[in-house]
Amino acid sequence: MKYSDCSKTELLEEQKACLAAFEGLKEKYLKLDMSRGKPGREQLDMVSDILTVLNEPEDCFVDGMDARNYGGLAGLPSAKALFADILGCRPEECFVGGSASLTLMYDTISKAYTHGLLHSPQPWAKLDRVKFLCPAPGYDRHFRITESFGAELITVKMTPTGPDMDAVEELVKDPDVKGIWCVPKYSNPDGIVYSTETIRRFANLKPAAPDFIIMWDNAYCVHEFDGDFVPFPDILSLCREAGSPDMVFEYASTSKITFPGAGISVMAASEENQKYMQKLMGVQMISYDKVNQLRHVRYLKDRAGTLALMKKHAAILKPKFAIVLETLEREIAPCGIAEWQKPKGGYFVSVNTMEGIATRTLALCKEAGVVMTAAGATFPYGKDPRDSNIRIAPSLPPVEELEQAMEVFCVSMKLAALEKLLG
Amino acid sequence: MKYSDCSKTELLEEQKACLAAFEGLKEKYLKLDMSRGKPGREQLDMVSDILTVLNEPEDCFVDGMDARNYGGLAGLPSAKALFADILGCRPEECFVGGSASLTLMYDTISKAYTHGLLHSPQPWAKLDRVKFLCPAPGYDRHFRITESFGAELITVKMTPTGPDMDAVEELVKDPDVKGIWCVPKYSNPDGIVYSTETIRRFANLKPAAPDFIIMWDNAYCVHEFDGDFVPFPDILSLCREAGSPDMVFEYASTSKITFPGAGISVMAASEENQKYMQKLMGVQMISYDKVNQLRHVRYLKDRAGTLALMKKHAAILKPKFAIVLETLEREIAPCGIAEWQKPKGGYFVSVNTMEGIATRTLALCKEAGVVMTAAGATFPYGKDPRDSNIRIAPSLPPVEELEQAMEVFCVSMKLAALEKLLG
Repeated sequence: MKYSDCSKTELLEEQKACLAAFEGLKEKYLKLDMSRGKPGREQLDMVSDILTVLNEPEDCFVDGMDARNYGGLAGLPSAKALFADILGCRPEECFVGGSASLTLMYDTISKAYTHGLLHSPQPWAKLDRVKFLCPAPGYDRHFRITESFGAELITVKMTPTGPDMDAVEELVKDPDVKGIWCVPKYSNPDGIVYSTETIRRFANLKPAAPDFIIMWDNAYCVHEFDGDFVPFPDILSLCREAGSPDMVFEYASTSKITFPGAGISVMAASEENQKYMQKLMGVQMISYDKVNQLRHVRYLKDRAGTLALMKKHAAILKPKFAIVLETLEREIAPCGIAEWQKPKGGYFVSVNTMEGIATRTLALCKEAGVVMTAAGATFPYGKDPRDSNIRIAPSLPPVEELEQAMEVFCVSMKLAALEKLLG
Repeated sequence: MKYSDCSKTELLEEQKACLAAFEGLKEKYLKLDMSRGKPGREQLDMVSDILTVLNEPEDCFVDGMDARNYGGLAGLPSAKALFADILGCRPEECFVGGSASLTLMYDTISKAYTHGLLHSPQPWAKLDRVKFLCPAPGYDRHFRITESFGAELITVKMTPTGPDMDAVEELVKDPDVKGIWCVPKYSNPDGIVYSTETIRRFANLKPAAPDFIIMWDNAYCVHEFDGDFVPFPDILSLCREAGSPDMVFEYASTSKITFPGAGISVMAASEENQKYMQKLMGVQMISYDKVNQLRHVRYLKDRAGTLALMKKHAAILKPKFAIVLETLEREIAPCGIAEWQKPKGGYFVSVNTMEGIATRTLALCKEAGVVMTAAGATFPYGKDPRDSNIRIAPSLPPVEELEQAMEVFCVSMKLAALEKLLG
């Protein structure tokens, strides 16, 4: 029954029923974590062969170098080639990093502040004001990086085809606006794939700031869990063709391909950007772990090898997303208290509840032993103006636990809505 | 024969002989690299078992966590315990990083500039002037980090017991002096071990800057190649006892214990510093590669295990250092054109030639196919005011190549000296 059509008596009865269900769930003393897009154990066990691809000294030689020793700042040539194959860019545009692309993103912003980017008139730390565009809902860790450096975060609305490009094109006329965060494929948390038109408009942006940077976090570039791999344009080529080759930095990693805590990452950018950044990176390091880069080259081989592995991840993930979507459809849709995306890739389901009940919903979940990403996390400064967006991360719990967690989630949301409606 | 006692005729004859020898060596078309403290292949092959300590999913669980998955910002508790055992500090004072301690040092300085350290009145980027003390000869990559952020580098003289502490104590009275670089054990390049008195004076420094930082790079903490492990005081304890627990950050890594390009590193600091820094580091990363941390824990086990492995490294390194020292003794000592240290640990032999011939010596070496660390590299801004210090890194070449390289080096130095003396 749609809550908005209910009488007060009906709502009170529903509340009574929900409370009883909630108490029952609490007695199960659940302890489930759905706060982060963590792959589940089954996914990690599946890639165990990567542990044993290098066994002997002879295995460690590649590209004319000994992967074990110092050197090779930008990474193994074969690792660059692997990422170029996956992303559709050129190997020489790739800088291969360690276990976290987040660190490469942080380094980029950090260097913009301390040294400036290639086209910066001066380091951002010298400016009175830096503004950064944050399509929201989005990825909390992105927003936190720019926030931590003191940038002013400006929310841009997400649409079903990507960030609101009319707004973006207008905002970049302000020379204080220095960049934008993007997750272009299976966006975190909405699972939206930017349309060809959106991507074209990104490549053709003409920002007032000469050092405006598109932070293109292609975190889910091969992460379809439902259906075949969806080819995606190479943003580096598009920016080059549009005459702004240095405007974009793209990031990706194998965190959700091999091991989240022990993968490799990439920062792809124009050769001019690479030359400039590597001069700065060379002060900071000698190279990232090339032995682990070689493990990945040997294990994944190329894009085809990577896509074959992603099919196996999909087989594990698809049933989990199905549970989330089915439970929402069954429990929440009839009440009319929330809407949600139905993604075909990525790691999240993004739910928008009726206004003002997200925080309360998650507090109730926690009471019943289910931890979810904090309400508001998907917005700049952690503040969702409508207190409505909730990010569900179904990958970690086994299927049976996920069913219980979704039960808890749905009844919590109903209770929060009823409290609100009943005043 | 001592060149300074020679007649012009004698010098001309010596020059003729040296030139002939030099031409002979050039005809061997050598291609030897002694520019960096790179371990040799034999050392890397020796630690191959680290490649195969983790083979099954079950091997990846430790400390109640799955090393493969996200989480554990400061590293595996067992990896912290390993480093604490090696350094003599507490596990909770350790932050375990990736393949390069250099990156952790860079991050510390970078954050001092962008966010400030624990006791910084404001981020260093906001200051008109930052000065940093650089005991020289020292490590070029240290100096380059602070130089890259625009700090003014101030040279402090090295003595046989460590940096000139009278000078250091005087210089830290200037509130613009924000820190000092140190390699306290087997200093790079001199191989000097700081005396107990020097270390005590460091811990008891009373700098004017409240956020003065001792960058204590204990790179060679277990790196004796001649004789037994030399116990070394824990600087964190000493600073704590002296009432300045937050004044020091200590760094170390397994780069010269396991694989240079694929080791693990540590940043040790007071718990208050850890709390402060980890809040900042948490924006930058989720964790460093914990699977590789676990490999190291399983392979090295503890300090005893590490020291046993270092004995094997010593067996390979000692003959190489012997060749360097013997050749210098035989070829150069009689000419009286240089002096050098005789280290018992570390990776370098530091040679001080007569004034004004280091650059020319290395140019001649290069002509004969032997690349050494650039002259001046061991001084701030890469400028040795006496053009005298040369860092020899004998670890990479096999013994027979090293003998040839040293021949080239000695004859090059003689030629450079003779050119100078003959005007």
